[in-house]
Amino acid sequence: MNSLPHDTARQDLFTYYRSTASYRVRIALALKGLDYTAIAVNLAGEVGEHLKPAYKAVNLQGRVPALRLESGEVITQSPAIIEYLEERYPQPPLLASDLLLRARQRTVAAVIGCDIHPLHNVSVLNRLRGMGHDEADITGWIGHWIGEGLNTVEQLIDGAAFCFGDVPSVADVYLLPQVYAARRFKVDLSAYPRIVQVERQALQSPAFLKAHPDAQPDKPD
Amino acid sequence: MNSLPHDTARQDLFTYYRSTASYRVRIALALKGLDYTAIAVNLAGEVGEHLKPAYKAVNLQGRVPALRLESGEVITQSPAIIEYLEERYPQPPLLASDLLLRARQRTVAAVIGCDIHPLHNVSVLNRLRGMGHDEADITGWIGHWIGEGLNTVEQLIDGAAFCFGDVPSVADVYLLPQVYAARRFKVDLSAYPRIVQVERQALQSPAFLKAHPDAQPDKPD
Repeated sequence: MNSLPHDTARQDLFTYYRSTASYRVRIALALKGLDYTAIAVNLAGEVGEHLKPAYKAVNLQGRVPALRLESGEVITQSPAIIEYLEERYPQPPLLASDLLLRARQRTVAAVIGCDIHPLHNVSVLNRLRGMGHDEADITGWIGHWIGEGLNTVEQLIDGAAFCFGDVPSVADVYLLPQVYAARRFKVDLSAYPRIVQVERQALQSPAFLKAHPDAQPDKPD
Repeated sequence: MNSLPHDTARQDLFTYYRSTASYRVRIALALKGLDYTAIAVNLAGEVGEHLKPAYKAVNLQGRVPALRLESGEVITQSPAIIEYLEERYPQPPLLASDLLLRARQRTVAAVIGCDIHPLHNVSVLNRLRGMGHDEADITGWIGHWIGEGLNTVEQLIDGAAFCFGDVPSVADVYLLPQVYAARRFKVDLSAYPRIVQVERQALQSPAFLKAHPDAQPDKPD
């Protein structure tokens, strides 16, 4: 990765195709129409690239995503990257102008970003495996936290089109990757009709399709 | 709790003295000099008050904190509440004016709010107990995630006074409760001198002292 020259006219996104947090940032970039160079960090394999010194020099946490600005400065943690993009490139907005609606959009983001995703992060699942849990236990663990969280989200959103109204917001930026993960983990989504409706709506949008894991060049054949 | 009349001239904070996320919001309110009515939600006991219908009518997730506005509207999830307070009451700011520094402050908040705290939330620890883990396992689990996360935070902050410079920011709003939790769980902090310095600095500030678990009326004797 260090051998890739940094083009000071563009931002670089360190990303992995099916990483939930990377997918969030890809959606935000696509919705704002921002161009960037995608640098794939392969989390799979015997030793993931994220744990190697070349990437740890970019992000000491060894996690994706990381956004490298034109200046060479790096921003890590998807919530911080998304708020940065919103402040630097306000149009189109990912947060409503009304303060209370902004809060509701951020609440949905936080339910997903704090109460669901951290519990099925690969590092957590590997820790559970190391504590003696088999794949049936892991599946139960994942299903529990995704189920509790999506049950909350289902009640918080209006889901008429996107999570809140007719245009996407940070709530959708977080929700689509979480639904993708839920499907990957074979979680039953039938109890969440609003969420499934938002997914259907978003996957008709070019920005969400461009950001989708299936559209990433680092997805294995 | 429903029997407590809602005073439309004041905001209500549903809080528990040692809840990390409640403590964050108490700090933000105190730094901004905002008055509020604290409504204690006792998470301890055979069945916690947070799981009872009266509180679930306030916050369907049954988690603290929740901020009830003068209008009666409720905002949940501490990251959403803190950003709301920053937008509604900009002075004194909890985020720098420089976009990149704002991002760094939010990165620290996200490391704590997404990578540390969700893994030692009481619901997660109880789930692990239900999966057969004893208190030694739980201690090891907590220590692992707090250690990894604080090791990251130690490298991200300058720690000259507060996390970034001479005034508190959202980074400190998140860090002080996390350090409190680390001490409660008897995590060794000797490897994190900058963090310990920030704690020392903050605990000389009236706002942080007012928000501290030891200063809350719902703390048991």
